[in-house]
Amino acid sequence: MMERTSEGLVIWLTGLSGAGKTTLAVRLAEWLSARGLPVERLDGDILRGRFPDTGFTRRERDEHIRRVGFMASLLEKHGVAVVCSFISPYRQARREVREMCRRFIEIYIRASVEACEARDVKGLYARARAGQIANFTGLDDPYEPPENPELIVDTDRQDVDESLATITAYLERLL
Amino acid sequence: MMERTSEGLVIWLTGLSGAGKTTLAVRLAEWLSARGLPVERLDGDILRGRFPDTGFTRRERDEHIRRVGFMASLLEKHGVAVVCSFISPYRQARREVREMCRRFIEIYIRASVEACEARDVKGLYARARAGQIANFTGLDDPYEPPENPELIVDTDRQDVDESLATITAYLERLL
Repeated sequence: MMERTSEGLVIWLTGLSGAGKTTLAVRLAEWLSARGLPVERLDGDILRGRFPDTGFTRRERDEHIRRVGFMASLLEKHGVAVVCSFISPYRQARREVREMCRRFIEIYIRASVEACEARDVKGLYARARAGQIANFTGLDDPYEPPENPELIVDTDRQDVDESLATITAYLERLL
Repeated sequence: MMERTSEGLVIWLTGLSGAGKTTLAVRLAEWLSARGLPVERLDGDILRGRFPDTGFTRRERDEHIRRVGFMASLLEKHGVAVVCSFISPYRQARREVREMCRRFIEIYIRASVEACEARDVKGLYARARAGQIANFTGLDDPYEPPENPELIVDTDRQDVDESLATITAYLERLL
């Protein structure tokens, strides 16, 4: 029998493709696990890989984010620390997710389109520029930066370790 | 701090609209809660009400069921007893959900179309007969009964209390 933590929480990483959300989410999940918390990680690429019918119109993106938010809120309710990494480009959908959750920590993983495109780890920017991907956030689809996130991490200026330290320093005060 | 149960489980109620799935799911969730288990209930009407863009083609139904199954499997992994009530008409999708979960208990809530239509608690059969609802399971859309469910409950012959007793008697041996 394990002890159930009294409270779960939802940590929501939003930002452009290539900003570093997944990398930070993986490291953050490890850090939370090491503290003995039950952790679940929900990631945009993983969920879209699993459910490939989800489209990229605003309506489909918003529905997708609401579904993920609902899933996260249920896990939170049962004491899980949920780390979510999703572009989640629209403010309104993120706000709806915030309202579903109890402790919701929105972290803006900030990097310029130029920096993300220069990295282009997955080659997606190149494919989008070549017209092979439509509705690509930051190019031909909007990204609405959070107006009042709990935290902003500038991955243009900070490397992964520094970015993680920024996040864990914030969480240390909460947990 | 609550104690975390060592194991979660997923109890999946499948059957026609009007067979009694939701009624039994509510009662079953109460019974599980009374035993001190952390419980979550996922229900077709609730989820479709919340996410109204989900359609009724086979493809959309299957994707819907897979998403629900994924959600249930995450909760189960974190020690929750998850009670799912979904028509979930296709065998293949139910099998996929079974494979996602660890302890999966499929319960066929069995009632004839005639009996469900005679009850027609929500008036859906009347609307389907009037041509106002298409792809209605049992009328113009198929229902594939489970071939090897953990349990069958005949709500044509048993009332709610008897049906619940059949289920809890089965679960008593597991929990």
